[in-house]
Amino acid sequence: MEHLKEKMVESELIYSGKFVNLRKDRVTLPDGATAFREVVEHPGAAAIIPITSGGEVVLVRQWRYPVDKVSIELPAGKLSPGEEPLACAQRELAEETGFAARRWQHLLTFYTSPGFSSELMHLFLADKLVVANAHPDDDEFVEPLVVPLAAALEMVETGEICDAKSIIGLLEVARILQGKSVER
Amino acid sequence: MEHLKEKMVESELIYSGKFVNLRKDRVTLPDGATAFREVVEHPGAAAIIPITSGGEVVLVRQWRYPVDKVSIELPAGKLSPGEEPLACAQRELAEETGFAARRWQHLLTFYTSPGFSSELMHLFLADKLVVANAHPDDDEFVEPLVVPLAAALEMVETGEICDAKSIIGLLEVARILQGKSVER
Repeated sequence: MEHLKEKMVESELIYSGKFVNLRKDRVTLPDGATAFREVVEHPGAAAIIPITSGGEVVLVRQWRYPVDKVSIELPAGKLSPGEEPLACAQRELAEETGFAARRWQHLLTFYTSPGFSSELMHLFLADKLVVANAHPDDDEFVEPLVVPLAAALEMVETGEICDAKSIIGLLEVARILQGKSVER
Repeated sequence: MEHLKEKMVESELIYSGKFVNLRKDRVTLPDGATAFREVVEHPGAAAIIPITSGGEVVLVRQWRYPVDKVSIELPAGKLSPGEEPLACAQRELAEETGFAARRWQHLLTFYTSPGFSSELMHLFLADKLVVANAHPDDDEFVEPLVVPLAAALEMVETGEICDAKSIIGLLEVARILQGKSVER
């Protein structure tokens, strides 16, 4: 696949922020021409699909400033420096929902928007939930929402849930429950 | 949901680029405190899951500079100014794969990463494919790849396909074919 590679010639750090950095790089294309690539550097994140013993999903409702609306999503958050994805998922689940889980399973790892961002999202299934303590970050306001999986899937179809990681988590769990054998 | 709202107090344009803009906004939180939000402004995009008469999916392989690797994805691209999502999808399908489709169906519309970006992705199912002409952008090098849907789903499970929009398209089509009635 090396014949498709774009090679960095020059890299300019445009902005170094709290959550993201922005770089503008000059690259050499496969045909030898040059082009610019804008790259949003992101530390990576973890998302959790928490399933209750009754087959419900624990979601969170929060304001998403970049899209100017309330969004219903899986609990999720950015990796702290040096943090393992599973540890991040466990921390975020407790912070945002007040639940801990006695069983964790890695589902998928994917890039949310590889055309302009390096964000890598690690998705985990969590079940055998027990009550822990909710303590969101100081600048984070989230409301938990517990709905049957079928209702959450309907919210995907109607567009009420319109966040990529959340859609992936719900569709993947539906697929696991429908087709593949699940160890219970 | 207005009680969750974060209100803009001050907005600073950090960078205005070819593909994205970056803003840093000071906002008022629900409890009256202030915080900063970094926002990557994106024009929006369309992605296509093209299905052949034999039940295969047409994918594209390309270098994704922000993640420093070749990525296998659904054909997709950014909206041009004023462009309708369906028109963008039709254009991108022809540009990247050389196919046109005689039937189009809107599947889902979602945010790829609403925590820091406004990117809205419109996903379409395209079938009844006919050969058109491939003519990618000058700075875009893509290779088409035609695989059975089952094989593409296996590539999601193994992580070989690790792009959010592509995973959503494949899981959603699998779900449609498995459960819901499909008009053929």
